Order: sequence, then C-alpha cells, then structure tokens
Amino acid sequence: SDHEKLITATLFPGDGIGPEIAVSVKEIFEAVKAPIQWEEHWVGTKVDPRTGSFLTWESMESVRRNGIGLKGPMTTPIGKGFKSLNLTLRKELGLYANVRPCLSIPGYKTRYDNVDLVTIRENTEGEYSGLEHQVVSGVVESIKIITKNASMRVAKYAFHYARLHGRKRVSVIHKANIMKKTDGLFLECCREIAAEYPDIVYEEVIIDNCCMMLVKNPALFDVLVMPNLYGDIISDLCAGLIGGLGLTPSGNIGDNGLALMEAVHGTAPDIAGKNLANPTALLLSSVMMLHHLKLHNYADQIHSAVLKTISEGKYLTSDLGGKSTTSDYTKALIDNL
Amino acid sequence: SDHEKLITATLFPGDGIGPEIAVSVKEIFEAVKAPIQWEEHWVGTKVDPRTGSFLTWESMESVRRNGIGLKGPMTTPIGKGFKSLNLTLRKELGLYANVRPCLSIPGYKTRYDNVDLVTIRENTEGEYSGLEHQVVSGVVESIKIITKNASMRVAKYAFHYARLHGRKRVSVIHKANIMKKTDGLFLECCREIAAEYPDIVYEEVIIDNCCMMLVKNPALFDVLVMPNLYGDIISDLCAGLIGGLGLTPSGNIGDNGLALMEAVHGTAPDIAGKNLANPTALLLSSVMMLHHLKLHNYADQIHSAVLKTISEGKYLTSDLGGKSTTSDYTKALIDNL
Ligand SMILES: CC(C)[C@H](C(=O)O)[C@@H](O)C(=O)O
Ligand SMILES: CC(C)[C@H](C(=O)O)[C@@H](O)C(=O)O
Repeated sequence: SDHEKLITATLFPGDGIGPEIAVSVKEIFEAVKAPIQWEEHWVGTKVDPRTGSFLTWESMESVRRNGIGLKGPMTTPIGKGFKSLNLTLRKELGLYANVRPCLSIPGYKTRYDNVDLVTIRENTEGEYSGLEHQVVSGVVESIKIITKNASMRVAKYAFHYARLHGRKRVSVIHKANIMKKTDGLFLECCREIAAEYPDIVYEEVIIDNCCMMLVKNPALFDVLVMPNLYGDIISDLCAGLIGGLGLTPSGNIGDNGLALMEAVHGTAPDIAGKNLANPTALLLSSVMMLHHLKLHNYADQIHSAVLKTISEGKYLTSDLGGKSTTSDYTKALIDNL
Repeated sequence: SDHEKLITATLFPGDGIGPEIAVSVKEIFEAVKAPIQWEEHWVGTKVDPRTGSFLTWESMESVRRNGIGLKGPMTTPIGKGFKSLNLTLRKELGLYANVRPCLSIPGYKTRYDNVDLVTIRENTEGEYSGLEHQVVSGVVESIKIITKNASMRVAKYAFHYARLHGRKRVSVIHKANIMKKTDGLFLECCREIAAEYPDIVYEEVIIDNCCMMLVKNPALFDVLVMPNLYGDIISDLCAGLIGGLGLTPSGNIGDNGLALMEAVHGTAPDIAGKNLANPTALLLSSVMMLHHLKLHNYADQIHSAVLKTISEGKYLTSDLGGKSTTSDYTKALIDNL
C-alpha cells in the first residue's frame, strides 16, 4: 500500500552467475512494487583485515545496520589461508540458525511429491570450530564444540519458528548414542525448550536413521533441528528431494531479527555472464526475506509467480530441462504476477 | 562338490527376531548343502570382564579362530555404562571396514531402480573415538581422531574390493573443506592408494553434495569410501534407497581375511518370537559370507532364490506388504532354489 515505509536491504549479488540472478530479483521486486530499496555490496578483491576475508567491513556493517539482506553465491578464492566468505558472514554477523524450507515445486517432477519440511541448522559451532591438531605424526584430531548457549538459542528458534508457521512437530537430529556429551547436551537443550511447547510434538531421531527415513518417506518430518554438520548434510539431502540447490531457498538468522537470506548453490562459472542461470533459489530466498519482513502479500505474489512459471514449463532454464534465458524466465515470471 | 572341506563359521543368532531369522539361514544352507558348519554363540546375560560387554570372551575367540562369522541383531542393554555390543565386536576383532553392497531388489519397488553401489566405511575411529570432555560448564567437546594407519588400510581395502568386484570408480566422501586436518589426512591416504589403481576412476565428493547427488541420481556412484560417521550416515541413506535395513546386507572386515557379516536392522522386539520377521538382510549377509569364502556357487543359488521369491511376491513378510510367516517365506525360498 502507499503507506508502507521503504525498507533498505543489503544485496550481495555475489560472484559468477550471482549478478544475473540478482537482476532477476530486482526486476521482479520492481514489478510487484515491493517497498524495498537495495543497498548493493560487492565482494572485494583483497582481504579486508577487519573481516579477515574478501568481504569488506562496510558490507558487514550494511547488513548489521539494515538488519536484513539477500545474498547470491560467492566463491572463496582457492589457496591456503583464504577464509571462507560464507563462514565469515555467519561468524561476523552472528547468524546462528540456517533455515531451509524444503517444499516440492508443483510442476517440477522429482521422485518425491509433496515434500514439505524445514531444516534448521545450528550455524556457528560444532564440527566447524576450526580446532584441529596433529597429535603425533599420522594422528590428527578435530574438535567438535557444543555449547549450551548456542544449542539453547537454535532450539528456541526452531520451536518459535514451528509455532509461528503452524507446524506440528519438531525432530531433533543427533548421534547422542555415540557422542554422548556433545550431542547429549544438544538434546538436553532441545528437551528443555520442547517442554515449553506442549502443542508441538517433539521427537529425537538418530541421524543415520533420519537419512534413511527421509529417502523412504520425507512426509514423516516437519521441522528438523540439528547441530552444524548434520544440518549441512541433511539440508542438502532434502534439497535433493525437491530437485537440488537451484530450487532451494535458505535463510540465516541472527539476534534481534537480523536475517541474511541466500541462494546456497554455486557460482556456476561455466555459464556465468551468459544469461543462462536459473534465478529460482535467489528468488525463493527473497520470498523468505519478504516473509521475514512481514511483507507477506509481496512474498506470496512472487512465490505464486515462480510456481506458476515452473508449472507451465514454457520458459525454463536449461538446468530444469528448458531452453530459456534468465531474462525470458524473468519476463515470464513478471507476466505471471 | 563332495571334495569341499567343511568350514566352521561362528553364528550369533542375536536377540529379538535374531534366532528366528537365523533358523531361516540355517535351513537354506542345509537345502543348498553349503559346506558350512555353524558354531553358535549367544549374547551373555552379564558383563564379561574380558570383553567389557555382554559378549563373552569365548564368542570372540570363536570368530577369531574361525575367521568368519554371521551375526543377527543385538540390543545393548539400556542404562549407563553398558558398552555397545556392536562397537565391542568391531573393536575387539579389529573389524576395520564395514562393507555394504546396496543393490535394488528387482520386484521390490522403491522410488529408485537399478541402484548398484557399495559403501565402505572406516569402522574403528573418527567420531567414534569415545573421547569427550566438558571444557567448562555448558561447553563440551568430542574429539574426532583420524590416523594414517586406519585411513590407509580402509583405502587399500576399498580399492582392492573395487578391483576384485570389477567396479570402475571409487569416490571418497569427506568434509575436508572444513575439517582440513582430519578429513584432509583421510583424503591424502586415499589419493596415495588411488595412484596404485590407474584402472579405477578416483574422485573426491564433499559429504553434503554426495547426499544430494545420491537422492537425485544414485547411478552416479559405484564404490564409496569414507570415515566412520559419514559411513554410518551414508550407508543408511543408501539402504533407504532400496527399501531399508531389512533388505540390506553388511559385512565387517578385519585383518587376514577375518570377516563378520551381519544384519544391521534392529531386534524388532514387538514381533520377536511370532514367526513374522523378514530374514532377508541376514540371508543376503550370509550370501556375502559365502562369496567371501569363495563359495560363489552356493552364494549365487541363495541370492537368486531370494530375488525370485521377492519378485514373485506371493510369500512376503508383513514389512514388505505381505502376509507370510518367516517359515512360509523360507519354504518358498527353498522351493525356488
Ligand atoms: C561451502 C561450505 C563451507 C558450506 C558449509 O559447509 O557450511 C556449504 O556447504 C553450506 O552449506 O553453506
Ligand atoms: C548402533 C550404532 C552404535 C551403530 C553405529 O553408529 O555404528 C549403527 O548405527 C550401525 O551403523 O551399525
């Protein structure tokens, strides 16, 4: 409506196909007149000493200030000593939960129909501690750290999310039969929060069994919450069920509503700049962003247009078996708004 | 033939449905006249101080002496301080590789056709080290240990297995982009062995991507080798592709040809003793055992009878949607030999 305040959001177009798919998002936001003003930031070309990576301090500040952002794919330069851009963002911005709604796209056929689940991944610790040592020659160790703080906050977020989105069940994924202390602490925290949500079914599922159940019958799951590495693994497995990372949105959540949504697929250097990339993952991530900002109306319009365009199947990019360019697909989306 | 020497193999019928499905195996071995003499061992009812678990020292000695064994499901009693029976066996017997051929069963429909891959899991270290500490209150750690020795021997086994079975590709599954030292060492060892097998394609796949590819197109894989926890996760995921643990054989390999094959499903206490259990996983494990002993002819006969009986679909147990008892299914198998 005319009364909506313009919201400033940080946009990282990213590398490779990032800029092209970001154009698609910008065009569609204009077409629906979403009250968003983008503040674009680019990945730098040298290490910024204040972030320790190619991400500039200014770009981090922009997300912090705006409280909301959208991010395309980024490649960490290859070589020793380069800090992963994705991990830098998570750490610097305290993005403690990675959320991936995983919904079948009607019209895009995979082996699975009606997948409808959400993975919530602890995003800051666990197997990603970076603590590794050589004990003696030929013997190395990596240390997994689980803290009560980080486990409580992601458990709280998972149950909060479940209630907010009318979801019925939260499954905690773990391997506490082997890692009794670390995954055990994670479970304890989830149990504590679960007790505050008697309306939501709580269950604990061992990760190996979870993966088997997911491929046999994903409908058994609703919201899944888990430590970092299990989340990394299971969120990609789930993306596979609905067609892959090119169709999967993702959001990273921090304190005080801070959120950075992102396309988690790669930069696809082979097709970059050729107007061939599929912008769907970034578009669906922008839909998550709009929902997060409670701009549900705009979110729903864009979401419906994406589903409709893919269902019609006339203007699909090559990854979905079509022959359209990024711009044709974007135009079809806009026509379907 | 009449000239075949009788081989003594240790048999652990195990708990729950274990004894019933073991009867099925024994009957079929008799029917094909497999030159196997079983030495049965039972899980004890109290901790044997020499093994630290309910498994008796005598039963361990039996596997060591015979060099070959078959194992039904076992439940570790619940409560603090009980050592897992499965982990005790792996550790005491030095069973360093877990091998799971994962083949679609023609006639049993899942979402995936023609799955044909083998997972090879490092079975002794990694995330299963048991090293865990509380650092300070609310902060706990688990230590993952990777050694050159254990990585080399499982890598060697994987390539040896691939060549022996005429397989074309070995994929190492890892997360060395995050766990650079531990998974990095595992990769180095695999690369070193791969160099000795120029006839076999070698590739490295990150675990999250691997899980996505597996659910999208399992035909991309052939032999997969990986550290302990990834093997735990991926072998169950793969079992899910073909129908679950009730249809999946498994073998644990140690030094000097030592092998203990096992059904990896649970003890199913709810149906135990009711003649309702499906013996397929134990039967297919016994087929692996026969192949391991180079008794290929007997192995093939049993394998064909299993596939035929399931294909015909007349005498299936309830887990496969049928109404047959364990004995009816076994009888049908014998008729199909
Ligand atoms: C690129 C890699 C470091 C990252 C991770 O492991 O978290 C990726 O797989 C992800 O899920 O965002
Ligand atoms: C029961 C459990 C300890 C075991 C494991 O984690 O190894 C099981 O999942 C397996 O794969 O044999």
